[in-house]
Amino acid sequence: MYLEHITSPEDVRALPASALPALAKEIRTGIIESSAVVGGHIGSNLSVVELTIALHRVFTTPRDKVVFDVSHQTYAHKMLTGRASAFLDPARYEEVSGFSSPAESEHDLFAMGHTSTSVSLACGLVTARDLAGEKYDVVAVIGDGSLSGGLAFEGLDNAAELGSGLIIVVNDNEWSIAPNHGGIYRNLAELRATRGASEHNVFRALGLDYRYLENGHDIAALEDALRDLRGTDRPVVLHIHTKKGQGFAPAEADPESWHHAVPFDLATGEPTGASSGEDYAQITAAYLSERMAADKSVVTVSAATPYIMGFTPELRERAGAQFVDVGIAEEHAVTYVTGLARGGARPVLGIYGTFLQRAYDELWHDLCLNAVPAVILVFGASAFGTTDATHLGFYDIAMLGDMPGLPYLAPTCREEYLDMLDWALVQTNGPVAIRVPVASVESRPDFERVESYSSGSEVVRRGSEVALLALGDLFPLGEKIADTLAASGIRATLVNPRLATTVNESLLGRLAARHRVIVTLEDGILDGGFGERCARALATDSVRVLCYGLPRAFPDRYDPTELLASCGMTVEGVVADVKRLITR
Amino acid sequence: MYLEHITSPEDVRALPASALPALAKEIRTGIIESSAVVGGHIGSNLSVVELTIALHRVFTTPRDKVVFDVSHQTYAHKMLTGRASAFLDPARYEEVSGFSSPAESEHDLFAMGHTSTSVSLACGLVTARDLAGEKYDVVAVIGDGSLSGGLAFEGLDNAAELGSGLIIVVNDNEWSIAPNHGGIYRNLAELRATRGASEHNVFRALGLDYRYLENGHDIAALEDALRDLRGTDRPVVLHIHTKKGQGFAPAEADPESWHHAVPFDLATGEPTGASSGEDYAQITAAYLSERMAADKSVVTVSAATPYIMGFTPELRERAGAQFVDVGIAEEHAVTYVTGLARGGARPVLGIYGTFLQRAYDELWHDLCLNAVPAVILVFGASAFGTTDATHLGFYDIAMLGDMPGLPYLAPTCREEYLDMLDWALVQTNGPVAIRVPVASVESRPDFERVESYSSGSEVVRRGSEVALLALGDLFPLGEKIADTLAASGIRATLVNPRLATTVNESLLGRLAARHRVIVTLEDGILDGGFGERCARALATDSVRVLCYGLPRAFPDRYDPTELLASCGMTVEGVVADVKRLITR
Repeated sequence: MYLEHITSPEDVRALPASALPALAKEIRTGIIESSAVVGGHIGSNLSVVELTIALHRVFTTPRDKVVFDVSHQTYAHKMLTGRASAFLDPARYEEVSGFSSPAESEHDLFAMGHTSTSVSLACGLVTARDLAGEKYDVVAVIGDGSLSGGLAFEGLDNAAELGSGLIIVVNDNEWSIAPNHGGIYRNLAELRATRGASEHNVFRALGLDYRYLENGHDIAALEDALRDLRGTDRPVVLHIHTKKGQGFAPAEADPESWHHAVPFDLATGEPTGASSGEDYAQITAAYLSERMAADKSVVTVSAATPYIMGFTPELRERAGAQFVDVGIAEEHAVTYVTGLARGGARPVLGIYGTFLQRAYDELWHDLCLNAVPAVILVFGASAFGTTDATHLGFYDIAMLGDMPGLPYLAPTCREEYLDMLDWALVQTNGPVAIRVPVASVESRPDFERVESYSSGSEVVRRGSEVALLALGDLFPLGEKIADTLAASGIRATLVNPRLATTVNESLLGRLAARHRVIVTLEDGILDGGFGERCARALATDSVRVLCYGLPRAFPDRYDPTELLASCGMTVEGVVADVKRLITR
Repeated sequence: MYLEHITSPEDVRALPASALPALAKEIRTGIIESSAVVGGHIGSNLSVVELTIALHRVFTTPRDKVVFDVSHQTYAHKMLTGRASAFLDPARYEEVSGFSSPAESEHDLFAMGHTSTSVSLACGLVTARDLAGEKYDVVAVIGDGSLSGGLAFEGLDNAAELGSGLIIVVNDNEWSIAPNHGGIYRNLAELRATRGASEHNVFRALGLDYRYLENGHDIAALEDALRDLRGTDRPVVLHIHTKKGQGFAPAEADPESWHHAVPFDLATGEPTGASSGEDYAQITAAYLSERMAADKSVVTVSAATPYIMGFTPELRERAGAQFVDVGIAEEHAVTYVTGLARGGARPVLGIYGTFLQRAYDELWHDLCLNAVPAVILVFGASAFGTTDATHLGFYDIAMLGDMPGLPYLAPTCREEYLDMLDWALVQTNGPVAIRVPVASVESRPDFERVESYSSGSEVVRRGSEVALLALGDLFPLGEKIADTLAASGIRATLVNPRLATTVNESLLGRLAARHRVIVTLEDGILDGGFGERCARALATDSVRVLCYGLPRAFPDRYDPTELLASCGMTVEGVVADVKRLITR
């Protein structure tokens, strides 16, 4: 086995060309077998095995700089830069991050997991190099899926203007997360069909040089093409054609499902984890499909992640023109739904909270300033969402808390979620965002429908001494705390705040008058969060306010329960704190 | 005079073609004369006079939909849609906003003032139209300067994919706010030079149809071109060539200075307002120019607004490769400086707070996650900045307060600002943002330099009973309140917090122990602001915290002093509140 003996890229360069196909095979096996156990971005990583080998044979990192966009193509790179054992030894599978990580290796320049950043980062490296009067190569590797992001365009546009040496490898495997959407993909298809010869060429139009390589899995051809570009003093695009999932039949056959794999059976490709039953993706898709069938003005919008709201290819097909995937283009998605709503449609945008960050200004300046009735479903917004530092899901409350006139609803169970959706789709005051639960699918069969969610909280239990305001996913924790306090003879009031970014001042005033301590529980950052708003509202009152939430930091690959515990959010911790304050 | 008799676009359509040159002249005079008195975006508005007349003769708004990007080309549109008197009658000059405003007219579809949104908004209107099975034209009018923004690319990319009828008029006057930067501008130049025939065509490459019109000031030709596109069932770009500042010699000669004019003398073009003396733009440019001369690794970056930090064409020229204008591309700007810093340069990005909103995710995911030492100078971040709802400058603290590891410094005087800049440029912990003062240039000759600004506040006066924490631009207000309280025998402690998004917990603890009331003053929104953080830090303490700040709302064309007063932020108001709390 070659891979075991590769401790740095130097070892890759020392290999004879004849050894490389076997090396590629070993890398593929490492990707597939480790992903089968711990999950991973399998399709994109399989598509760049040969490219990565060629990059490390032609360029000398870390002196030369290679930036992998979004990090979904870094597994082979990790294996060739001293981290092979994390893919070969099951006991070490979890040693490395799934993303580019400077903490792991000097060959990883940036921590990253959002798309479309590589060309801009590389432009910065290029200018820094030129200012310092140094000579080395800077290479950005960007997948076709990332090209629809406006940031990638801004980077390409500026790269052309800077005019200095920069190699941009466009890894075109014909797929985004889901199928690509956008005019640029027709251009890529035309370029593939003409082997790069089409006169329509968005890269050349921007002033970039351009080369095309049809077989992106031919290591020798890749090496030749890259060697030819080494030391370039111009920005140049090398467009290579690869296959998503190359070398793993299930992923080749179904690139969307295999974009990111949960642990699976190597033989069958079937997930090995227990099916977790109904989830909010399915609940959402079922609701919206029915709603769209009944009302042709309702339109569901996704930015390249239809699966997060359960829209399988079949459901997308069924929805027809009422389901629009705009591709990786979160900014456009938000401004587009603003236009949709102004035009009389009822748009619902389903989006990950961490990616919604891309559209902060569009939320503020387009959606909220224009106060049109669009619905934003925020997925993965919780401490229980993605646990990588690059994709933290618990900054959403602080972010959406800056938006004027945007109620941000945090349902505590499926019945409340659906009732909120119902309300959001008929009200006409302006936009509404909903924090789709993540931790678990709770059910409250006795749930009573609510006329309006524009204000108001739900007092679930009435008590004295202490009032617990437990937001969304943390409502069950609030219930347990109340139960435990009751066992000590303290009858706590329990409140479902419903609104995550707006304080119910009249309720708070009443609670302050009848309780000595008010506790807020949220799985969002404390800074700018829900609890802080309550603390300010009561800052001239004598009631004590205990705010629980998460730190403004970048925990990486954390355990949600442990993270909450480290912030005092355990039943025992909160109960002890409350008792201490009450007896003070 | 024709204009006086135009009460709606119908009147424009009724005019004989022979009357149109005179009408255009009247509109130009209205733009120039009103801008001379109240200021305005003069260059871009002068470039679209003929286009606007043609649009209103060919299309029937509001049934047909015309979306003007960024609103810097809406003055003629306003004059032709019932609002002419606001440009003709000096007594009514301030009746209309400088921006597109649905509150003013059914012919204005969106409130907007940030760039690059029009195509995405128009895409939404197109889909809504198609879902409803209606037939009307949707037109987006976008200036060349806005095309470098990634959102515009995302819109064009999706327009091509949607494939439905949409007319995108690219008004190419060869200028952004300052000269254009980016590869797309070479393509526009090539298209102009070839009268649209170049094989390099970024629009066609994306799959959009394309037409070129050389004389964008020829009303008949514009009408023909637009009439030809009426009812199109495809997305099509009409690229027209115009002159920024057309018809006003000073603006034609110096498009950058005349992008936005302050009140000026009609005969000479000279500003009529009193020169306000030294400002933070000049202070910044002087500092950075000297610093860059001494240290070749320092590089100043702008996103199309070099003037906000005093970089005149001369200073840009002098800085050479150490000054980079990336064009209207705020996302790229932030990711680019991340790359610059990782590459060993010392970047300083100067940017308006309201436009920095575009780069929220890049701040979080690129700059802060990678914790590289870049400096962000945030301009106009204050209640005393731009007072249009589209450009509010007081959301910055809440926004930057979400960023892990980003100290946000709020200097209270020029000496402190320069000392903070000095520190920011030598420290290596990570990024630093500075809230450049807006309200006034204060000076404290006795200012003592500080070793580190990563934590710590300055206790300026020591007192008892009440402690005033007065942030940045509001420090002079804090001083006045302290003086007035002193006159009533209340010796207040006065603190310059220095850090706008991080609470100095040990200081707060000491203050809480020695004072009954703590007052926070900030010209930022209360929600997620500085005061709220203090309130939470003290929420289990018995001290009262009085937070003053601004509402999470969209006040439009407000008076800063009045806005502050409406939030209780007057000397008398705060003094009265404090006395009430102390004697309670």
